[in-house]
Formats: sequence, C-alpha cells, structure tokens
Amino acid sequence: MRAFVLISQTALASGEYSLDDLPGSSGRIDVLLRCVRAALLVSHGLRKHVRVYLILRGGSWGPRAVRIDGQSARFLRPDERSLAILLQKTLRASANVSANEFRELRPGLSVCAGDLDEVLADAGPRPGYVLDEQGDDLRAQPLSNDALFFIGDHLGFDEVTRARLLQLGYQRSSVGPVSLHSDDVVSVVTNELDRRFGSNASVGAEPP
Amino acid sequence: MRAFVLISQTALASGEYSLDDLPGSSGRIDVLLRCVRAALLVSHGLRKHVRVYLILRGGSWGPRAVRIDGQSARFLRPDERSLAILLQKTLRASANVSANEFRELRPGLSVCAGDLDEVLADAGPRPGYVLDEQGDDLRAQPLSNDALFFIGDHLGFDEVTRARLLQLGYQRSSVGPVSLHSDDVVSVVTNELDRRFGSNASVGAEPP
Repeated sequence: MRAFVLISQTALASGEYSLDDLPGSSGRIDVLLRCVRAALLVSHGLRKHVRVYLILRGGSWGPRAVRIDGQSARFLRPDERSLAILLQKTLRASANVSANEFRELRPGLSVCAGDLDEVLADAGPRPGYVLDEQGDDLRAQPLSNDALFFIGDHLGFDEVTRARLLQLGYQRSSVGPVSLHSDDVVSVVTNELDRRFGSNASVGAEPP
Repeated sequence: MRAFVLISQTALASGEYSLDDLPGSSGRIDVLLRCVRAALLVSHGLRKHVRVYLILRGGSWGPRAVRIDGQSARFLRPDERSLAILLQKTLRASANVSANEFRELRPGLSVCAGDLDEVLADAGPRPGYVLDEQGDDLRAQPLSNDALFFIGDHLGFDEVTRARLLQLGYQRSSVGPVSLHSDDVVSVVTNELDRRFGSNASVGAEPP
C-alpha cells in the first residue's frame, strides 16, 4: 500500500471554511485537496492501492488526521470544489472522534483527533521518504511501493516535524531542481512508482 | 520557450459557466485550469519562460484559442476557482476577437477565434511532442525545452486532431504506464524538462 502523508500547519480541522474562498478561509486546504486528486485519481478511475493521510493542524479542532482509502472511497471527483465539499462534510461530522483510532465517517474517509504519531501508528512500520528540496534524488534511490511519502504544505515542514521524521530514519528525498507545489510532488513521485512497479500496483477497476 | 497546448473538445469558449459547478457546466474547463496551474506555477512563483495555449471547441463561440504567457501574466493563483474567474472574465471579453491574431484582453492572457492551425502559426516552427499512452517513453527521447507539448483533455485527442499532429511530424510520447489526468501529464513533463534544462530555464523571479 502506497501512502502519502500531507502535513499542513494551517489547514482548518473543523471544516468551517467557505467553498467560495478556499485559499483565504480554510488555511489552504485547497493545497491538500489537489494532493488528494493527484494521489488517488487517474483518467476515469481510482487508485485502489493508495492511501492518503491529511494532517490538519489549524483552528481549535486541530490537530485532526484524515485518512482516505482508495480501496473504499466513493464519490471522489477531481475538481477542487467537489473534494472541498466532501472533506467539509467529513470534518463537520468529526466532533467526537478520539485520538486513539480512526473512525470512518464517509465511505473510505476516516478521522482521528491525532497528529503525526497517530498516523504513524495507524500506518504501521514501513519505509518512508521525506520529500524535501535538500534531499537526494528520488530517481537514484531504491524505492518501495509499500512506503510512506511525507510532503509539506505551501509552507513546507516546520522544523519540529522535519526533525522528528528524520530522527525516525525516513529518507530525505528530492524530485528535482525546482521547488514545486505539493500536488506536483505527488504527481512526480506517483509517476516514478508507476514506472517501477507497474500500473497494477495501484490502479484498480474503474469506479461506478 | 516551453509551451503546452491543451486541446479540449468540449470546453465552452464563451465563459458562460457556473463557478459552483465547473465540471457540469463548463464542458470540463476544470481540467484545463488544473493544467494551467501545473504548467505555470511553482512554489511561491511563476514560470516566466513557459506559455500555455488552451483550445476550447465547445459551444457556439468555439473554437477559441487562449494564450497565457508566464512572462506577462498577473494574478494567476493556484486554486481552481480563482483561475476559473480569470478565464471567465477573459472569455467574456473576447466576443470580437479575430481568427488572425491573438488579442491581449488581460495581462498575459490573449484570445483568438481560432483552432489548432492558428495556435501553430502563433507558436512558430518548433519541435513538438504529442502526449499519448501509445507513444515512446519521453524519458528515453532527446527533448527540447523550446518545444510544443500537445495534451488532450479528459476525452483524449479526437482522431482528426491526432492524425493532423502526427502528419505534422510531431513525436508521439508517453510519460508512463498509467493513463493519467492531463494535469499530471503536465507535471511529469515539466519535471523531466526541469531535470534536463535546469530551473533557470523556466522559473523567473517571484511574482509580487
């Protein structure tokens, strides 16, 4: 199972954002939504063997972690507004989730009142790559398709998070010479994995 | 100058779409907008040496071609709704454009009442690559950073367009084993060009 972990310092965990001004009202949840599309959707299909974790640290409800499973997710559409509506409904229903486990609130969308440590516990022990401009070239590294790929938001990683990830032994990796948007990083990592492990490693049947 | 040519069979050329339902009301202009972001925007900056052409064939105003120049574009934001508003204003102002030349209607955004041939005339003679699942691997090909990259929409290329592009001698190229969204194709092509030609080949100073 390929998993992306998107860590946002500002994204509002409550879902109380305006669909008409996502960048200005949500703490840049738009950045995360574009990553969800890039990680999970292909032309006329869904990647069944991919999972996305969103860590939302913004607002009084933060931190919250959202897990989106390609295997069971429904109604994932590529446009930002549709994804924003789906995430908003999920977050608004998450008032009483615990920090100890992910609770499924929509098909394939689960939430816990946790942060990085709760995500790592849920994902289990696996290799991991910290996407960072200062890292070694991902193309030149041995990769696993059963790994965690950590990506920051528009602000990158905060220092505490970066230090923690590196202390845990995850590999610092770069995708190229230009500082890209988070969703472009997801697209490029995904392409490298598709090339190495083949399309069947992630893409399932077409959604209905 | 790197240029992407996005060809949409359905995208409404009039700009008469609803911002609250882009996929359902615009002939999938959302697909094109995501490609614009992937081609032109980087983390906290704009790619100065990249140009995007959109060919919109839908509705009674079609075909229209829109040119977006990284060198002179302003107010390009990454979120879909902001880009949809900018394109809508531009298209609505394009009632009287001619087929003979691109007219600048917003900073860096120009429109002509043309189709593929008008885009090719404007771009001038250059190498070109037709992004297609059946093509040869782009990574294994010699590439130019002064080239045209043709990409279809969610329906791919229609047969007439594909035949015309190949007849013109452009190279059929693929980015990998999975049929991707158009914007993922833009991201992957862009990464390959960044790797070969360096960041300065496309990224300019930060926008204000």
